[in-house]
Amino acid sequence: MKVIELAAPRVDALHSCTYPDPVPGPAEVLVRLRAASLNFLDIAVATGKYPLNNFPIIPVTDGAGEIAAIGAAVTDWTVGERVIPHFIPNWQDGRMPTAGGGPRRGIDLPGSLAEYVVVPAHSLVHTPAHLSHAEAATLPIAATTAWRAVRTAGLGPHKTALVLGTGGVSLFAMQFARAHGARVLVTSSSDEKLERARKLGADEIINYKFTPKWADAVLRLTDGRGADLVLETGGAATFPQSIEAAGLDSTVFIIGFLSGTEVSINVVPVMERRIRLQGNNTGPVADFADAAAAMTAHGIKPVLDATFPMDQAQAAYRHLAEGGHFGKIAISIP
Amino acid sequence: MKVIELAAPRVDALHSCTYPDPVPGPAEVLVRLRAASLNFLDIAVATGKYPLNNFPIIPVTDGAGEIAAIGAAVTDWTVGERVIPHFIPNWQDGRMPTAGGGPRRGIDLPGSLAEYVVVPAHSLVHTPAHLSHAEAATLPIAATTAWRAVRTAGLGPHKTALVLGTGGVSLFAMQFARAHGARVLVTSSSDEKLERARKLGADEIINYKFTPKWADAVLRLTDGRGADLVLETGGAATFPQSIEAAGLDSTVFIIGFLSGTEVSINVVPVMERRIRLQGNNTGPVADFADAAAAMTAHGIKPVLDATFPMDQAQAAYRHLAEGGHFGKIAISIP
Amino acid sequence: MKVIELAAPRVDALHSCTYPDPVPGPAEVLVRLRAASLNFLDIAVATGKYPLNNFPIIPVTDGAGEIAAIGAAVTDWTVGERVIPHFIPNWQDGRMPTAGGGPRRGIDLPGSLAEYVVVPAHSLVHTPAHLSHAEAATLPIAATTAWRAVRTAGLGPHKTALVLGTGGVSLFAMQFARAHGARVLVTSSSDEKLERARKLGADEIINYKFTPKWADAVLRLTDGRGADLVLETGGAATFPQSIEAAGLDSTVFIIGFLSGTEVSINVVPVMERRIRLQGNNTGPVADFADAAAAMTAHGIKPVLDATFPMDQAQAAYRHLAEGGHFGKIAISIP
Amino acid sequence: MKVIELAAPRVDALHSCTYPDPVPGPAEVLVRLRAASLNFLDIAVATGKYPLNNFPIIPVTDGAGEIAAIGAAVTDWTVGERVIPHFIPNWQDGRMPTAGGGPRRGIDLPGSLAEYVVVPAHSLVHTPAHLSHAEAATLPIAATTAWRAVRTAGLGPHKTALVLGTGGVSLFAMQFARAHGARVLVTSSSDEKLERARKLGADEIINYKFTPKWADAVLRLTDGRGADLVLETGGAATFPQSIEAAGLDSTVFIIGFLSGTEVSINVVPVMERRIRLQGNNTGPVADFADAAAAMTAHGIKPVLDATFPMDQAQAAYRHLAEGGHFGKIAISIP
Repeated sequence: MKVIELAAPRVDALHSCTYPDPVPGPAEVLVRLRAASLNFLDIAVATGKYPLNNFPIIPVTDGAGEIAAIGAAVTDWTVGERVIPHFIPNWQDGRMPTAGGGPRRGIDLPGSLAEYVVVPAHSLVHTPAHLSHAEAATLPIAATTAWRAVRTAGLGPHKTALVLGTGGVSLFAMQFARAHGARVLVTSSSDEKLERARKLGADEIINYKFTPKWADAVLRLTDGRGADLVLETGGAATFPQSIEAAGLDSTVFIIGFLSGTEVSINVVPVMERRIRLQGNNTGPVADFADAAAAMTAHGIKPVLDATFPMDQAQAAYRHLAEGGHFGKIAISIP
Repeated sequence: MKVIELAAPRVDALHSCTYPDPVPGPAEVLVRLRAASLNFLDIAVATGKYPLNNFPIIPVTDGAGEIAAIGAAVTDWTVGERVIPHFIPNWQDGRMPTAGGGPRRGIDLPGSLAEYVVVPAHSLVHTPAHLSHAEAATLPIAATTAWRAVRTAGLGPHKTALVLGTGGVSLFAMQFARAHGARVLVTSSSDEKLERARKLGADEIINYKFTPKWADAVLRLTDGRGADLVLETGGAATFPQSIEAAGLDSTVFIIGFLSGTEVSINVVPVMERRIRLQGNNTGPVADFADAAAAMTAHGIKPVLDATFPMDQAQAAYRHLAEGGHFGKIAISIP
Repeated sequence: MKVIELAAPRVDALHSCTYPDPVPGPAEVLVRLRAASLNFLDIAVATGKYPLNNFPIIPVTDGAGEIAAIGAAVTDWTVGERVIPHFIPNWQDGRMPTAGGGPRRGIDLPGSLAEYVVVPAHSLVHTPAHLSHAEAATLPIAATTAWRAVRTAGLGPHKTALVLGTGGVSLFAMQFARAHGARVLVTSSSDEKLERARKLGADEIINYKFTPKWADAVLRLTDGRGADLVLETGGAATFPQSIEAAGLDSTVFIIGFLSGTEVSINVVPVMERRIRLQGNNTGPVADFADAAAAMTAHGIKPVLDATFPMDQAQAAYRHLAEGGHFGKIAISIP
Repeated sequence: MKVIELAAPRVDALHSCTYPDPVPGPAEVLVRLRAASLNFLDIAVATGKYPLNNFPIIPVTDGAGEIAAIGAAVTDWTVGERVIPHFIPNWQDGRMPTAGGGPRRGIDLPGSLAEYVVVPAHSLVHTPAHLSHAEAATLPIAATTAWRAVRTAGLGPHKTALVLGTGGVSLFAMQFARAHGARVLVTSSSDEKLERARKLGADEIINYKFTPKWADAVLRLTDGRGADLVLETGGAATFPQSIEAAGLDSTVFIIGFLSGTEVSINVVPVMERRIRLQGNNTGPVADFADAAAAMTAHGIKPVLDATFPMDQAQAAYRHLAEGGHFGKIAISIP
């Protein structure tokens, strides 16, 4: 497959890179990584579709492990603690310091496909006790993004979320919406995936292969009111129906563009229903920490599709690129 | 002109309608109207482009006058007070009760092209003391909409607003943004209108006839940061540049579609800069009251382009439809 | 008992009042009441401790029933629907129109201890299908207040609520916090009431008779972080510990003053932990509607302590005044 | 004077401390300080009234200067730029990472009474071009705190702020409220200070020596509505009137306790008017940057009472402790 042919040499070259400075500075921590996890962003990086400032790099944004050493000024972390470094280490909370939030691990900074990484202490989040390293590694991008969607829309037990698809962010959004007491509707073209989504808590499932006007189904299932949150992952092909399915004072949370980046919007219903179309680009450490705390409190587990050993990292990339998975793909680090 | 040919007979027929029940109920007020003011919405109604449930109607959403009689249960208003009835009388504050906010004067309810109208007491706003009836009549739709744009974007002395065009809402938005201490950039294709905008307080003016890539000009004038609020009035022709001109965590406030309702958006910059595209449909009485209070406190006056006598109401419609005006068009009621 | 001696004659006099105008106006609805429910506010009214502008009145703020007739302009309600009129009929949403929100049923307007009442259509909330009239009658004040507490504090599955006592608002707050996924701690001096609270979903219970320093218990149970929401019902005797038990960026929501209205606060911890002490006075119709929607979605039932027939209304007042109840007290209307 | 007798030896001992490591780490910056500025907090530190974890320290939280060297990874700052390091360097934005926001310069970290200091690059704010180093040094604590008060209360041209006293934070709050278009009322016991406040933009002045019931004056000046923001600096002696003077849905922003930390509050008006009593503890770097941007945009200058040379730092402390000043006290660093 083309994607992976391109990816192969780079990943080969990169994952054996020696990190230039494995000694943590005063406010830093050395993490012994135990697992990494892939996002589509990692494929874009590996295939040269994402502009890189540095080369070679250690790839993969998301990972988890335990603390191997701490800097002299670090007081709130101890060696041995299980941790997840956030992939945008310097976006602490609130407004983005810069577009995208700042330098990112696996792109501008050393990533997770390595045995060790040095990160700022303030970028760490405690690994929920009920999660393995592989499960924890799946959280930074996907759980943080899903968390922001749910919180931005102000979900609660009086509201309804419509989640497009069953990708990594969508599954987390479904779980977090349920944990806030909201009703969840999910779309997919696979009855099998929809059944699995239902087992994870989805209240209503819509197969858009058989119901191509899925927005009508959403309106029917909500007594004509529409959804309070639409998690927009599809882009060009889904956007018009996403707006049809959105209710009064609702939020269409834009996190992807699987079918194309150029979307066409009729602004009249957007105005009449005061819809908020909110672009988003993951989130800060504080949001990730909140999401992890919620997972701990509710025993929420990420859905792991497969875990590959580190020496088969290319196969992991290939598995993600091929589609068909349900849940996240992890790489274990020996 | 076609528009007015269509408008003429209806307006003739309607403005002499006798209001079915001129006696205020317990919680209502009878207003002696002294002026009305036109919006493009009124042209759409008069030309049959807007779906009407009732016919005939008394047209024109916006108007002002003084209280002629009060209902038995009304304690906070007195006969003789100068007032402006909000055009969506039953949207008091917060969330929209229904799409569009509820029944609207001049569309579903008796409008302002009449000598008397009965309205709920809770829909009244005090006419600022420094405004004439004709000036006051221009406020409901345009000032309320502009106010919401400025407040939704959280403007303040550290922020920048980009206002597209010099229509009624744009001029109010410029004045309200300035009153919040924000910097204001305005676009137009007319140097004369831009000069008038500058006199009203615009900090920077951009003639998009000579600067067709006006988004670049906005970025240059903001040291590359972009605007915190973009007041989007243009629709199809302006939307792509509106997004280019929008900064980190900014708001593109959608209130019009002069050049077409179908807009094309690239979601990538919307995501990377976390832009909020916020549809809007005027606002409730409480927002209108806040806008009026700000006008009183700062001595802000609406810009009146022309005032027509009531028996030349058709000429007023025609003047608005022809374009070229700067500011609002009023109709005096004898 | 003194309270009831005072209450008795007034209640006698009032509940047989004929409502002056049982015909609904154009935007009004006639409700055939089927149940009423008591709050401490009703005792204050009945015993003359609450300043009244009108006398005689029909007492009791909260009630429920079904629609008996609708005004000519009412389109979104039909005769026979089960409804709950909000007790502040004209506070629709958002900011309070006036202190307290406006005229209140059972105080300034005809209340619920009657067979019929005319109310504005916009003040109605649908009775959740799984609730009886008596259960529905308990909602307006207590459920709306509890809902606002939970929403103001931004509760979710990552947060903790501390609820003082097991009164009506406290039980609703416990249920709504749980429905948002939050962890709930409850205090009481009765092991029996605490056990019942636990069955309703409380995660942790604290008997302050045996643990007079209950704030320490809260800190211990939250790993020193404190609660994100403290529902302050006690006033003078509890406020200092409520602040000790409140975490960083938390909300102390002030809804009562059982032990005295004059509270003493040390502002240093309030500043250091950026605590928000939020006064509250129930809420608008829109919040009540959200609370009712959440109850429907989650099958939440109010806790009914006892239901009295209408001709024993005084006994109902007495039962509330005596304390010792767990949950709300209803009065059935034949 | 006692305070300064205590302060003297410590300040002597400390200001000549050699900073242990004047070489910036990769993400750090070395600042050549040119001025420092005092807050009451610095007196508390110098007189041993504030618990210190480290001793000796370099005192004084607030300072300004220019960049002398940058770390290897710093890309957005250059040597020679005029900068103000925030005094809580690691509180970037949003929620407080820990109580108080984290380690603070002049308390837990090296402060500003020194020629050089190493700080994280992300803690820097650009010095507004129209300010001297001495003026810039006055900003971190006072301007950030005042900014948060104004933004938390949502001030705008329709709102009114009541500022207690003419201390450093109060003067900034007055200037920022005016820059947002709000009306400003100021209290003081000195006619001379009130006249100076009026020249800085105060709309109304109240001498509480002659008007001991100043809350009544506030209500009279606001047509009975009260203030939307009360900047509470006084504590025990002023709190009751601050609540009387606060309007519907208003904010009492608690930043000081000049007359005592134990305040007594009647919760009834707090509930009836839904007042928010908001504790605050300065703010993050992002708020400071916003405040500085507003000062640049509006040409706002801090009020400097006096500037002392570094070798007379003790006299500067003494001057602050003695009271009677109007505006901030700076120390120039040669």
